[in-house]
This record gives sequence, structure tokens and C-alpha cells, in this order.
Amino acid sequence: MMNKKIGQQSIQFANPPIIISTANIGGPKEKEGYQGENFDILMEDNINGFDSWEKCESYMMEQVIAKAAEKANKQVSEIECILAGDLLNQLMSTHFAMRTLQRPFLGLYGACSTMAESILISSMMIDGGFANLVAAAASSHHDAAERQYRFPTELGVQRPPVAQWTVTGAGSSLISTVGDGPRVVGATIGKIVDMGIKDTNSLGAAMAPAAADTLLCHFNDFGIQPSEYDMIFTGDLGMIGKTMVIKLCAEHGFYLSNNYQDCGCMIYREEQDAHAGASGCASSAVVFNGHIYKMLQKKQYKKVLLVGTGSLHSPTSYQQKESIPCIAHAVAIQA
Amino acid sequence: MMNKKIGQQSIQFANPPIIISTANIGGPKEKEGYQGENFDILMEDNINGFDSWEKCESYMMEQVIAKAAEKANKQVSEIECILAGDLLNQLMSTHFAMRTLQRPFLGLYGACSTMAESILISSMMIDGGFANLVAAAASSHHDAAERQYRFPTELGVQRPPVAQWTVTGAGSSLISTVGDGPRVVGATIGKIVDMGIKDTNSLGAAMAPAAADTLLCHFNDFGIQPSEYDMIFTGDLGMIGKTMVIKLCAEHGFYLSNNYQDCGCMIYREEQDAHAGASGCASSAVVFNGHIYKMLQKKQYKKVLLVGTGSLHSPTSYQQKESIPCIAHAVAIQA
Repeated sequence: MMNKKIGQQSIQFANPPIIISTANIGGPKEKEGYQGENFDILMEDNINGFDSWEKCESYMMEQVIAKAAEKANKQVSEIECILAGDLLNQLMSTHFAMRTLQRPFLGLYGACSTMAESILISSMMIDGGFANLVAAAASSHHDAAERQYRFPTELGVQRPPVAQWTVTGAGSSLISTVGDGPRVVGATIGKIVDMGIKDTNSLGAAMAPAAADTLLCHFNDFGIQPSEYDMIFTGDLGMIGKTMVIKLCAEHGFYLSNNYQDCGCMIYREEQDAHAGASGCASSAVVFNGHIYKMLQKKQYKKVLLVGTGSLHSPTSYQQKESIPCIAHAVAIQA
Repeated sequence: MMNKKIGQQSIQFANPPIIISTANIGGPKEKEGYQGENFDILMEDNINGFDSWEKCESYMMEQVIAKAAEKANKQVSEIECILAGDLLNQLMSTHFAMRTLQRPFLGLYGACSTMAESILISSMMIDGGFANLVAAAASSHHDAAERQYRFPTELGVQRPPVAQWTVTGAGSSLISTVGDGPRVVGATIGKIVDMGIKDTNSLGAAMAPAAADTLLCHFNDFGIQPSEYDMIFTGDLGMIGKTMVIKLCAEHGFYLSNNYQDCGCMIYREEQDAHAGASGCASSAVVFNGHIYKMLQKKQYKKVLLVGTGSLHSPTSYQQKESIPCIAHAVAIQA
């Protein structure tokens, strides 16, 4: 048996799985942002005729998986397994989408790192020979997340300047043993990093050390410099977390320069009042499954690193005065 | 590349991963039950000196992983990845245990099917060559689950006769490419089955059709009869769900007889007032990582099928009058 483990926490795929198609969806605020042109589906409003935010999120998850299949000329029924998750308690949106889609399903929880986690485990399934076609997906919904983690949006509570805006959207990647598309060549599985931050509005700062930890581990495990990648993307650190990651990596001799961006800084325009940027599972899910994938297809990026970043606190842990445990998983994708 | 997929939803491992050790923990009610002798660690009470049920659950998760490592003469630091989950919102107990254990970590949510899901994905990691030593784990805590899903136990709300008792406990399996122990030879990944049940006290009845669906798929995918196994265990269907599974399988020509048991019926004695039986992630986690593993080691069972059963509803989906989506994942283990 071939050993595909490399270094401390990383994997080098032997038969790099192929991302044969992707799809994403967003709401009106996402449409107005920088990624407006890069969505497959756009909703007119954040509820789309459903009677709850959660059901609208479930619809988004369903749609992106179906759309990714359609774009690859596949039936949903050909997908051998779906690996997905969201931010809601007991993955509510994912589970109700899976009830409709009726495919074998493995539920994941990595908070906002879920898109990278699902690509990572999906790629192990494909490279390991356990399936030929799987879907990785993640979603989040601004209003559903706000009322679960903070306050119902109807209350109109003022958000502090460090706060980020949870993206209403979803994204899915269809990953296969055969076909055309960029390939998942490597991955790094993250560890929990918790630097003691307790402010659940300041998630970018809480997650930055976890992102840096995974990045440093990735560079060391593969023996590479950041310049290996045309572009490195973190998931949803926002303006504050992004600056911290650059600083933390530099302290260890790895210099992220023009080839580093954070998906949380690529969604909303300044005038959209999203404060420190975008967040949520959908932050990296909509940017990866839209813009980044397109750039890889066009070979404008030859090799990118996607680092999903997740804040793993819960309202209960916050109430119990615990600090915020964070994690980041990385997947390397080559055109 | 070898194709290890078999039938519609199943996997046959090429180099069956070895479960080199297991460990479990329980509280006082679990000690008094049928499994009393089969615990590695027992707590004197359900809070064990912590200031919340959730932190006590986190401690249990930590303990079983450390204990499983110790029993295999390994350091926790040698575990290359931990795959784990629990019932709490945002996997609170798991995440805080992972903060302490400091190993690469992939979070899973399968509700009470988590133990089987974690063994399944861990086995793919091992058989696929992505790691040499991983830990699969799951936990639940009666009081933490009650206050999240139903009512705080301090309220003393009367439980209906169909209700099951969430197990306070955790279990972990250490899975490796080398060593001695029973091997994970096959698996079946479940689909969501939702027959429209909305009563969150009657989870055994809600989950039974999902268990039957996975069982039937498993028998068909491998072309085997239930008699292939010395014993088949479902996770936490309790008395009511267990009877339903036997009936549902019989309707399709598969007869579960003396070789079928439900972990939820193997934990509490009748006089312990647990009503329809045990439930929670820890139901199958404590029975599998104690009694079943010992029987496999002694070769009193040569081949068993563990079918983790999960009810994937959330308090929010219940409030929105949704029915209960359920899932079951199966892992076949041979001495």
C-alpha cells in the first residue's frame, strides 16, 4: 500500500482527484458585491419564498449540488456520496437538502472550514478508490446564522466594526476519478488553535493563528515556500485576520505577498457596510466554486492553496465564558 | 487504482484497517446497567467536578482517546488524525477535547450514528494510505442533551414511555495499518430516510426505517444474508425501533433472528427506568468499544455488523414543524 502521508499533518494524493465542475449561489447582497458576476444562481431575496431562513439555506445547498451535476452533464443520482455541512445546530440545512437529494451522505462539521474539509475528505474517498464521483458542499445564511449565534436580524442590533457579515450562499464541487478539470494534489489537516480570544464578534482575529498554524505546517510538510502557489486563499478571516496571518507567517520566515488573499475580503464592497469583511461557510464556498475555479479552468492560476478557516465555538461555550477554538484545513489545487 | 466500491452504497476494504484498541467511559447510571463490567473508566457522578455538563462530556471524549492510546502502548501524540463528533450544537464537547489533545482533527456530525461514521471515514483514511494511526470517537451526555433537545433535567419533566435515555459516556477506537485486532472489512454509507415522524420523543421509531434501509442495502450490495454475521448491532433504536427493524427487514425477505441486537437495549436494566432504552452517540460508542470489541478479541464473535443510527433533527427543525430525517451507516468488523 502506498503511503500518501507527508510530513506531520499533510497528504500528497497519488492519483490527484479531479474537480470536474462546481456551482455556487448567493443572495442580493452577494450579487451586489465583487463576486456578482461569478454566481451560477442568484436569489432575489434572502428567503426566496420559503417560510424560514433555514429552509432557504437548505434550498441553496440542494441547488448547488444539482447545478454542479448539471454542469458536468451528470445526474444527481450518479453522485456516489455527498460530504457536506453548514453552521446551523445539527446541520439543519444540510440534512433537509440531503433528504431531497437522496444520495449516500456523510455529515461534516468544520464551521467555516467546511468547504475545505469536504474537499479534503472527498479527495481521500476518490484517491483511495472508495468512489468515482462525490460532491463536496457547504452553505451558510446570514439571517439564520445571526439569530443562532448572536441576535435575530429583526432586532436591528448594532454590529461592532470588527464584526464580519455571514455570507448567504452555498457552493459545491463535484470530484471524480475521471474527467477534465483542476486536480486536488495535496492537503493539510488542521489542529485546534485557541489563543484565548472570547469576543465572538472578532472571529477573524480568533481564526488567524489557526490559519497561520496550518499554512506553516503545510509549507514545512511539503518543503515549499508560499511562492509555490500562484495564489493562497484563506476562508473568512476578513481585513483584521488577514493582516494577522501575514504577520504571523512572516515571524516564521514565510512571506505571503501579492499571492495571498482572503475570500472574506473578496465578496462585499466597502460601501456595502459589511465591516471587517465576509464570513460563514459560504465565504470560501462561493469564492472557490466560482471565481477561483474559473481562474484555474482558464489556467490563469496554475496552482492555488485554499485554506478553510473555522471558528468552532458555540453559543453555549460562549455563555460558559470559554474562549474560541479555531481550526484551518488546506487543500492544494493544480490546473 | 483499485476500485473498492461494491454495489450501490458500500465499500470493501482492500487492506482491512485494524482496530488495535478501544476505550469507553460511563457515568453512575451506566455503571449500574448491563455494561457495568465493560467500562474502562467510570465517573462517580455526571458532572465529575466540572462546572457544566458540556465540559464533563468534553472530559469523557478526551479520556477515551487517551485511554485507547494507552491500552495500545501509544502516545496520544502518535495519533495522526482524530475523527469525532457529538450531539451538541457546534460539537462543543468534541472541540474542547480536541483543543486539549492537539492532534490533527476532522469534525463529523452524524448524531447518534457518529461512532459508525467515524470508524467508516477513519477506515477509508487507513486503507487509502493517508495515515497509519487514527482515532475514531463519539460522546453524549444525558443532561447536556436533554437541556439542548428537550428540557433541562432540573425541571423534572415527565418522560413519555416511548422516550429513550441519552447515555452519558464516550467511546474511542484506535485504527491502524499494523498491529493486532479485529479488522474493518466493509462499510455501507447511509442515505436520509424520513417517514414523516414528528415526535422527537419517539426517535427509535423515526430511525428504524433508516436502519432497515442501510441493512437491506448492505445485504444486497455484498450479496449476503444476515446469517453472514455472528451478530448485527444497531446503535440506539431501543425496544420500539428494534422490533420495527426486524419487521421491515422481514418484509424484504431478510430475517434477523437471534443474531440481531440493539445497543440501546443492552445498556440499562428494566428497573433503571430508562423507558424504551438507551440513545445518544454514546449508546453504540460504549457498547462497541467495550462489550463488542472484547467479544471480537476473544473470537466469540467472528464477524459483526455495527449499524450506527442517527436522528438528524434539530430543535429548530422541530419548532418549524418538520419531520425527523434519519440516517444509518454500517461497518462490518471481522475478528
